[in-house]
Amino acid sequence: MGIPDTARLELHSKWPRGPKNLITDVPGVKVGHVTLKDQDINTGVTVILPHPGNLFRDKVMAAASVINGFGKSIGILQIQELGTIETPIVLTNTMSIGTAFTGLCRYMLENNPEIGVSTGTVNCLVTECNDGRLNDIRGFHIQESHVFQAIARADEWFEEGSVGGGTGMCCLGLKGGIGSASRQITADGQTYTLGAAVMSNFGAAGNLVIGGTHYNAAPGPVSRGADKDRGSIIIVIATDLPLSERQLGRVARRATVSLGRTGSYCGNGSGDIAIAFTTANRVPHYSERSVLNCRMFFDEELDRVFEACVEAVEEAIISSLYHAETTTGIRGETVLGLKDFLAGTV
Amino acid sequence: MGIPDTARLELHSKWPRGPKNLITDVPGVKVGHVTLKDQDINTGVTVILPHPGNLFRDKVMAAASVINGFGKSIGILQIQELGTIETPIVLTNTMSIGTAFTGLCRYMLENNPEIGVSTGTVNCLVTECNDGRLNDIRGFHIQESHVFQAIARADEWFEEGSVGGGTGMCCLGLKGGIGSASRQITADGQTYTLGAAVMSNFGAAGNLVIGGTHYNAAPGPVSRGADKDRGSIIIVIATDLPLSERQLGRVARRATVSLGRTGSYCGNGSGDIAIAFTTANRVPHYSERSVLNCRMFFDEELDRVFEACVEAVEEAIISSLYHAETTTGIRGETVLGLKDFLAGTV
Amino acid sequence: MGIPDTARLELHSKWPRGPKNLITDVPGVKVGHVTLKDQDINTGVTVILPHPGNLFRDKVMAAASVINGFGKSIGILQIQELGTIETPIVLTNTMSIGTAFTGLCRYMLENNPEIGVSTGTVNCLVTECNDGRLNDIRGFHIQESHVFQAIARADEWFEEGSVGGGTGMCCLGLKGGIGSASRQITADGQTYTLGAAVMSNFGAAGNLVIGGTHYNAAPGPVSRGADKDRGSIIIVIATDLPLSERQLGRVARRATVSLGRTGSYCGNGSGDIAIAFTTANRVPHYSERSVLNCRMFFDEELDRVFEACVEAVEEAIISSLYHAETTTGIRGETVLGLKDFLAGTV
Amino acid sequence: MGIPDTARLELHSKWPRGPKNLITDVPGVKVGHVTLKDQDINTGVTVILPHPGNLFRDKVMAAASVINGFGKSIGILQIQELGTIETPIVLTNTMSIGTAFTGLCRYMLENNPEIGVSTGTVNCLVTECNDGRLNDIRGFHIQESHVFQAIARADEWFEEGSVGGGTGMCCLGLKGGIGSASRQITADGQTYTLGAAVMSNFGAAGNLVIGGTHYNAAPGPVSRGADKDRGSIIIVIATDLPLSERQLGRVARRATVSLGRTGSYCGNGSGDIAIAFTTANRVPHYSERSVLNCRMFFDEELDRVFEACVEAVEEAIISSLYHAETTTGIRGETVLGLKDFLAGTV
Repeated sequence: MGIPDTARLELHSKWPRGPKNLITDVPGVKVGHVTLKDQDINTGVTVILPHPGNLFRDKVMAAASVINGFGKSIGILQIQELGTIETPIVLTNTMSIGTAFTGLCRYMLENNPEIGVSTGTVNCLVTECNDGRLNDIRGFHIQESHVFQAIARADEWFEEGSVGGGTGMCCLGLKGGIGSASRQITADGQTYTLGAAVMSNFGAAGNLVIGGTHYNAAPGPVSRGADKDRGSIIIVIATDLPLSERQLGRVARRATVSLGRTGSYCGNGSGDIAIAFTTANRVPHYSERSVLNCRMFFDEELDRVFEACVEAVEEAIISSLYHAETTTGIRGETVLGLKDFLAGTV
Repeated sequence: MGIPDTARLELHSKWPRGPKNLITDVPGVKVGHVTLKDQDINTGVTVILPHPGNLFRDKVMAAASVINGFGKSIGILQIQELGTIETPIVLTNTMSIGTAFTGLCRYMLENNPEIGVSTGTVNCLVTECNDGRLNDIRGFHIQESHVFQAIARADEWFEEGSVGGGTGMCCLGLKGGIGSASRQITADGQTYTLGAAVMSNFGAAGNLVIGGTHYNAAPGPVSRGADKDRGSIIIVIATDLPLSERQLGRVARRATVSLGRTGSYCGNGSGDIAIAFTTANRVPHYSERSVLNCRMFFDEELDRVFEACVEAVEEAIISSLYHAETTTGIRGETVLGLKDFLAGTV
Repeated sequence: MGIPDTARLELHSKWPRGPKNLITDVPGVKVGHVTLKDQDINTGVTVILPHPGNLFRDKVMAAASVINGFGKSIGILQIQELGTIETPIVLTNTMSIGTAFTGLCRYMLENNPEIGVSTGTVNCLVTECNDGRLNDIRGFHIQESHVFQAIARADEWFEEGSVGGGTGMCCLGLKGGIGSASRQITADGQTYTLGAAVMSNFGAAGNLVIGGTHYNAAPGPVSRGADKDRGSIIIVIATDLPLSERQLGRVARRATVSLGRTGSYCGNGSGDIAIAFTTANRVPHYSERSVLNCRMFFDEELDRVFEACVEAVEEAIISSLYHAETTTGIRGETVLGLKDFLAGTV
Repeated sequence: MGIPDTARLELHSKWPRGPKNLITDVPGVKVGHVTLKDQDINTGVTVILPHPGNLFRDKVMAAASVINGFGKSIGILQIQELGTIETPIVLTNTMSIGTAFTGLCRYMLENNPEIGVSTGTVNCLVTECNDGRLNDIRGFHIQESHVFQAIARADEWFEEGSVGGGTGMCCLGLKGGIGSASRQITADGQTYTLGAAVMSNFGAAGNLVIGGTHYNAAPGPVSRGADKDRGSIIIVIATDLPLSERQLGRVARRATVSLGRTGSYCGNGSGDIAIAFTTANRVPHYSERSVLNCRMFFDEELDRVFEACVEAVEEAIISSLYHAETTTGIRGETVLGLKDFLAGTV
């Protein structure tokens, strides 16, 4: 780690990468995984912590874009209304979001005894993709405790590929998973970072595009449904740039461009959701004052932010493929990793 | 039952009520409750079945309106994208939506062995309000089995007031809960029905309006937070009118008018969500044909549908108050029922 | 003027009215009219100036809510994307928005020689209702110069009723037009104002509600289409409260509650649009810095703002009816003013 | 004409092109131009007729997607609410939309004497991009009569490049304009067509991508602002596939993918709007029946429609560049056409 190895894929990079080329280049952001991998079971939980403090009392400003709403993620509606994230962000498989929600809710209650007593409820943010091609998704293998473990393991350094929530995911006919990248932007003489992390599970076999090059060759025997652009992607964008909720929404909507550049056409069955937050605007849960200060970006200068976002998300997707190893899962299905695929075809 | 007893409150009714004055006047719709009521525990589950068949294979056309998104409901995003409901609709308390989701998911898997194997996932629709004022919401008392039980009990006749998901809900400083009403509309010589069911938990004490009359007197000692317009309402609108998804969205958005007429100003902390479906447009899960027939309403004739919707939702809200009994819950808090409140003040 | 005479209608007022009970109680806001009234011609232009300076260089933060999109207003899309208003707000009749746009565009070019040369374009905000029941709307009687005149006449004091853009408008079967009201809110020891101005042209005859009382009696012979809830309303909400774009959107969406309280059910053919802006957050057209300071409200304290908004918009609507005189227009059609209607029926 | 010459650029084409490779491959669709080209004046009007009959009485089902709302287009709100287009679609320059609106409105009134008398108003659809780099946009050179002329000239065959509304447009640092393409899809044994037409005016110099290949070389001396992704694109998608309004919205949203594939990142100042309509679902203005029949597509089969849309819009953009000639306009500014650019650099 430490070397942006996906750079070898020669992705377009107009803006400089951060030192780790990970979402955790944004100061304070941490990522943790729990991976379940045992024959038919290929699934897990990934959590992203926007900052190391008490998120419920010190929320980060946020927005979300539902690119294609074939998805079941929990907590998006409240982000759109209130413009904040107040819990860790959980990524897991579709059918386990109920259990993950309960786990995350218990975690928040343990750390905030006033929730549901002297204050209202908490908006637990739990996102999902369908890993049923490789995982026994009907088995409900995720436990509440996995959410606690993933939070406990969260770190600035984290693995990419077939780990955590990405363990059983497939993407563009190949093995998908967790990927990340970052870009740096200078404004008013100060350097800011925008980082992206994805759980990739979208796209049809034969549609892969890397840096503009189409990889049309079918990756071995194509299995059931692999030729449909289905499956979903969760995209999390973090930054320390001072952006308003409206501006974070604009940034999140640019992720569609990145999807297009990697070969997606946002298929019917793909739940494509982008969430963007900034650590630079904090919203307190309790405040003695009614009027709060915040900061925003001059919209005329946003182009560089949009372009950095498009680059980081595109590279995070390719990185998720690059790091994911060939995997055999339920029903004996084998899905090739990108490196094995490229070795066989290029 | 059988007598529209809320009519005695002299609510405006331009359009005729259905025979039961319940959402179940729409043919095929059923409602079932599980009520948990034991000292600190005042909560439950209500389910609404759009039709008695296999919902996954024979979906109903639907839309949703997020009136105020301070809410955690699951499944709304996919309704907005695909325009269908494919599971029973569950109403319960905020922190139990994870468990209720898992219960509903297991129910769907049991009845559809192909989900997650030969076809994709299922969009479980689970909605919520915060009953923490009267209920030990931190206790996670809802079990997965409660969802199965509520579905098994679903019937054309059902109780209103402090039952099912509405057991611990409060509304406008009084006891809220489940309420329902219906209206009939004639088009092209045929009689159609539009019914509404609500789980009411919104509004500030002192803001109650019934049929245009303000009830400003505070209902006894106002407890913590009762003067805030918080808490949420879930509004389900069913009809056998042939409406398109776009038109169902227009109908759902009219529920805001009903909220305003009962005293709400859609407070910051109120998760106000309206879901509308029609049994007249079915969407199959499997189809050999790519082109499907459907029916829509002539938009120029929608005014009567909008007005019937506004009336039905308003009356369903008042009915939820009318049927809810005075209740004492956690921390010894007592919340008056509307009948006791009116007896003391009018 | 100076006396809030609509108060005599005993509208609910939890929050104190501003000294003029007009939108111009918000410091800096001005309103101007040009009224065209000559037999078949009953139309005009109203402009609202958010502040007296150069709006293009010093924009106000803003948001808009499309309550029912049966409308042709220009400039709403860009408000939603950029969160600013950069021109006076024009209100006129539906078919004249093209001419009004060109007039407003020329006004902006005259005052900003760099538009279209060294900087981009300008987002002219032109809104409309259909006054075709009383006005020869097919005659295109609005001229570009009327926009210039209305801006020149803008003042803190302005008439309500059948004036300006409201000259030919009808509402709830009666004569509609321009109405306004305001409310005061205290936060952090400081007094803020929220004001509303409307151009009312919505609602069906027999649906009027004033302060909760239904006026169901038909107002004399009902003319063609008067029983349909059609025609539109433009609602402009101004404040000096520091609100973010997201919060201004939440405020704008509350106007639906006010509509419901006056008798609307948001009919199919009604273009109901609410625009909200704050003078407290300014956005420059040119900035040497990329990061800008702004202020927002603590969302938990927004309930009072929402409630004040609901009250101000409701009272502005009733005030538009109260001040509009009985008018005879094209095709000999006569529409009663509220005072004449009440004199005949109460 | 008749030969899809942009195919020589080797764009990815999974789905077969229509015989003309133009939007007019959809039966009944016609396109007409008026081009104004005289030294400082480089602008015009393009109209797209969805079908040759009376559009007001026989509307086409439609939807719109506001990809980036830095735009002033008129008529989008009502498409989103009512799901129909009832006039020709006009494309022109930003400051001329007022005049074009009035021209289109007069055209509709001439052909429908009942508008504004015995029926309501008409939703004129007028879209725009800013051609101020090459055109004297402050001169308001578009006249109402140009709209009538463009409609009169509408034909199945039409020119691409620097014509009509596209005369003065620039795109990705090169000369933009009008472009078109089409794809064919088979469903239930029947062949359907999806066509796209664009007015391209977006993107930053140095960002051009054709078929995955980046053309990073700056195209000669870059002029003021050419390095910003600004300017806008109007995308019109026509089909004879039976799609619902919701499905047309899904199709329109896929245009973002096409933008991404040609080098856009949807810059701050780019008004990117996609409009989609189907000739297969007609909505009458007058109907004796309240319930109407319509047809929709099975969503599970939409992937091919999405992919065909992404291909057609991408190719329409590249075609607009391919056909646009090097142009010198106001202030002596010269913008290279793609063919001249490629001749100099490849």
